[in-house]
Amino acid sequence: MRRKVYVEGSRPDIQVPFAEVHLTNDDPPVRLYDTSGPGSDPEVGLPQLRAHWIMERGDVEEVPAEGTATVGQTVRKAKDGKRPTQLYYARQGTVTPEMEFVAIREGVTPEFVRDEIAAGRAIIPNNVNHAESEPMIIGSAFLVKINANIGTSAVSSSIAEEVDKLTWATKWGGDTVMDLSTGKHIHATREAIVRNSAVPIGTVPIYQALEKCNGDPLGLTWELYRDTIIEQAEQGVDYMTVHAGVLLAHVPLAADRVTGIVSRGGSIMAAWCLAGHRENFLYTRYRELCEIFAQYDIAFSLGDGLRPGSIADANDEAQFAELKTLGELTKIAWEYDVQVMIEGPGHVPMHKIKENMDLQKEWCMDAPFYTLGPLTTDVAPGYDHITSAIGAAIIGSMGTAMLCYVTPKEHLGLPNRDDVKAGVIAYKIAAHAADLAKGHKGAQDWDDALSKARFEFRWEDQFNLSLDPDTARAFHDETLPATGAKTAHFCSMCGPKFCSMKISAELKEYAAKGMADKSVEFVNSGGKVYLPVVAS
Amino acid sequence: MRRKVYVEGSRPDIQVPFAEVHLTNDDPPVRLYDTSGPGSDPEVGLPQLRAHWIMERGDVEEVPAEGTATVGQTVRKAKDGKRPTQLYYARQGTVTPEMEFVAIREGVTPEFVRDEIAAGRAIIPNNVNHAESEPMIIGSAFLVKINANIGTSAVSSSIAEEVDKLTWATKWGGDTVMDLSTGKHIHATREAIVRNSAVPIGTVPIYQALEKCNGDPLGLTWELYRDTIIEQAEQGVDYMTVHAGVLLAHVPLAADRVTGIVSRGGSIMAAWCLAGHRENFLYTRYRELCEIFAQYDIAFSLGDGLRPGSIADANDEAQFAELKTLGELTKIAWEYDVQVMIEGPGHVPMHKIKENMDLQKEWCMDAPFYTLGPLTTDVAPGYDHITSAIGAAIIGSMGTAMLCYVTPKEHLGLPNRDDVKAGVIAYKIAAHAADLAKGHKGAQDWDDALSKARFEFRWEDQFNLSLDPDTARAFHDETLPATGAKTAHFCSMCGPKFCSMKISAELKEYAAKGMADKSVEFVNSGGKVYLPVVAS
Repeated sequence: MRRKVYVEGSRPDIQVPFAEVHLTNDDPPVRLYDTSGPGSDPEVGLPQLRAHWIMERGDVEEVPAEGTATVGQTVRKAKDGKRPTQLYYARQGTVTPEMEFVAIREGVTPEFVRDEIAAGRAIIPNNVNHAESEPMIIGSAFLVKINANIGTSAVSSSIAEEVDKLTWATKWGGDTVMDLSTGKHIHATREAIVRNSAVPIGTVPIYQALEKCNGDPLGLTWELYRDTIIEQAEQGVDYMTVHAGVLLAHVPLAADRVTGIVSRGGSIMAAWCLAGHRENFLYTRYRELCEIFAQYDIAFSLGDGLRPGSIADANDEAQFAELKTLGELTKIAWEYDVQVMIEGPGHVPMHKIKENMDLQKEWCMDAPFYTLGPLTTDVAPGYDHITSAIGAAIIGSMGTAMLCYVTPKEHLGLPNRDDVKAGVIAYKIAAHAADLAKGHKGAQDWDDALSKARFEFRWEDQFNLSLDPDTARAFHDETLPATGAKTAHFCSMCGPKFCSMKISAELKEYAAKGMADKSVEFVNSGGKVYLPVVAS
Repeated sequence: MRRKVYVEGSRPDIQVPFAEVHLTNDDPPVRLYDTSGPGSDPEVGLPQLRAHWIMERGDVEEVPAEGTATVGQTVRKAKDGKRPTQLYYARQGTVTPEMEFVAIREGVTPEFVRDEIAAGRAIIPNNVNHAESEPMIIGSAFLVKINANIGTSAVSSSIAEEVDKLTWATKWGGDTVMDLSTGKHIHATREAIVRNSAVPIGTVPIYQALEKCNGDPLGLTWELYRDTIIEQAEQGVDYMTVHAGVLLAHVPLAADRVTGIVSRGGSIMAAWCLAGHRENFLYTRYRELCEIFAQYDIAFSLGDGLRPGSIADANDEAQFAELKTLGELTKIAWEYDVQVMIEGPGHVPMHKIKENMDLQKEWCMDAPFYTLGPLTTDVAPGYDHITSAIGAAIIGSMGTAMLCYVTPKEHLGLPNRDDVKAGVIAYKIAAHAADLAKGHKGAQDWDDALSKARFEFRWEDQFNLSLDPDTARAFHDETLPATGAKTAHFCSMCGPKFCSMKISAELKEYAAKGMADKSVEFVNSGGKVYLPVVAS
């Protein structure tokens, strides 16, 4: 049986969720990290778990909104001169309830969480206006996280569908969700998503800014972009992708590529830079951005606008020139106590992955790395959740803190519900494989519990411990639908007469008794080990 | 357009198949490795492509069959004292038509193929009684290959279904197929499979031997096993898994494992050893086996009967004790001019994969490694094609020559047609990603051609170059079903107004002209880059 439990922290309002699997034998229940949130009525939204924590620190006040689209509302914002960010508090030596919350989730001490944040090696993305979120941490010393992208587009999909995808993505293990909506209703879609999300929400504000000037990048101005940032900050967006590293001088470096600039944000900024032969305003206005981000505790996700879109373009000059700039921008954000993570590629063959991780660590001073895949080959459209899960697992094992999922529809179409699930599951696999490879404390307990259940033919326990219990059960039903088969001491692979698991379970007993008696006893028991045995 | 072409070798009966993709622009056609075979009527079987090559060497004669099940038939077998194996010929300095065939397939010289075989670093599995097969090579200097397992079981499935799975598996890229049938009709199933297979067929003869003694391992004898080997040799099985490394002394090493012995063959032999407190007859009779294998040019696939079945059991003493024994057995097989590959795990977390490859190379003197996955976590039943594709890609990039696929049904049930395809595709991805990582000459041409088609919005070319054109096309149709969308200069991800690929294609032109003029021209052209453009 699988159910949600809450573990209380040092105060009663710290309630940390886990999925607890109760086993059919006497082993203790297994607790799994849980991202599914408390569940909500989409009309009402989620309760504001963190509201009290945010306000009791005394650095935030409720004020009239300033954004064009949010005008008339009351929102939270830093008091004059205050920087209510987790990085600020960590640097002060404070353990916030948010830090304690993630410490319980991760099985580490709150002080360790605080120190990792203070050093810039980890972030807790949590805008003061998204008090609904359950704190989670992104950093290489913690469990590897995954992000799921959703969002309406010009071509199709509705707000209700996107909220459903949010709930669906977090049910299967999405740690954060990015709302990449384009087309109409961006504001309303995002409002619905943030109010119903127990995980941090990320956006790419340049998409909405571009909508505001009818898709013409030459219409973009700092003022228009700033207003968009404020609007999203007031709604509660927890981290924002900012392509401030696409410098005018970098653009020509991408000219000879096989696939040019594939990042939407990157190509918009490149167009803007080239049109006026001028420097990217996200770069020139970067300190102003930092001031705004600090007021809401928004984290930077410094975008890789020049990431490679094909194997041929991996690890080229354009890509690394931008990465180096992201390192400089990281340092500046830290001056303002703003949390930062760094986005990474893209399409990279396996043997070039390590260089990405090494340079990112060096140039970005161990700020968390957040990579899209990488896809390890270009030849399998329709299966890029797999081409990229391979790269994601590898880069995760090297220290990447969060993996941005890729769905089977990548390059081809818009992901539906099934694609979202396929992407999330493939990435949970990559993340957990990486946790194992990093020797992350406790990570292997999950594998061991499942394998033990498998070896002992505890089918229900095996299903309940699975990353996707529904699919595991359904697949078993397909070959052996009978209820009795769920307690049988064999599986459909070998059938009842011929089962290696059963044989070796019995061999284990023999071996334990010493070799001499064993053979006699084995012969005396006859062919018994091959007879079908149904567990009582 | 995608069609099959044949490239002629130094003589007209060497016709090497490729899938040739013709593009819609002026680029030359792209040739892809093709495993699908000439196609056949299951009632008749395939033509005997290699019959003349085998007989013209003068070392093989047609004789009455000796197997209990094959009696009355005429089969091919070495003349007295001859060893008609590719290893023998390679050591003599001969380039056989089989070697030339694979040289053309792989884009290398025939002499290189010969030398790799002579050194034991590569094998061409091709029983003289399976003259229908199109030669293929397994070795770390060549393209990484994949194997698909099929076979009837005690629980379900029919002969016709299995032949259909064979055709299906090779259509999608299976390089070899193992027939793992258990239950009734093993002989007839195998006959149908071998006669219809253009790829090498592997088996695990102990499965059939066990059927012959009604599933009682204590009934197994060398004579019964030998008769099974002869029967399968005469049918044309190209390689056989032999668990000769499961020694009596190794069995207790597996006693404390979480999942014991998960290999069926391994557990059978362990039971046999323990029951009589005696040494594995596959080990004690190994030289006799070598003599038989040499007479038909059957390759050994030295089985890893003690491979780990869980993350907890990876790289343990039992596993490596067996691997070391497999190295000794390799040396002995080579004395008899018998080709050898070595089977590998199993369940192994990413950070323990390298040790497997390193020890295999060292102990087995660079004989080809043939691994099952490895699965990099135990927690995702229903998705083990993905948990294992990660491990397969990694170990492939390190030098593993062939990857044994895992389907989504692993641990849960019997793979159906969809599962076979899912397994094959996941493994083709892993194999190609490994080829890229190894810097295999020409491997990246495929990626580059596809990415160029993608960048230039040549949708039909992109589909035809895809590993799975059907799925790529279907996914595109799902969001943008109109025929016009297949020639549109945008995709469903961004919609017509907003397309990074299109923007950067235009940026490329601007950049090529130099920065100064560029900005003027860009402004003069207005928002043109964002208008929908449909290709003429």
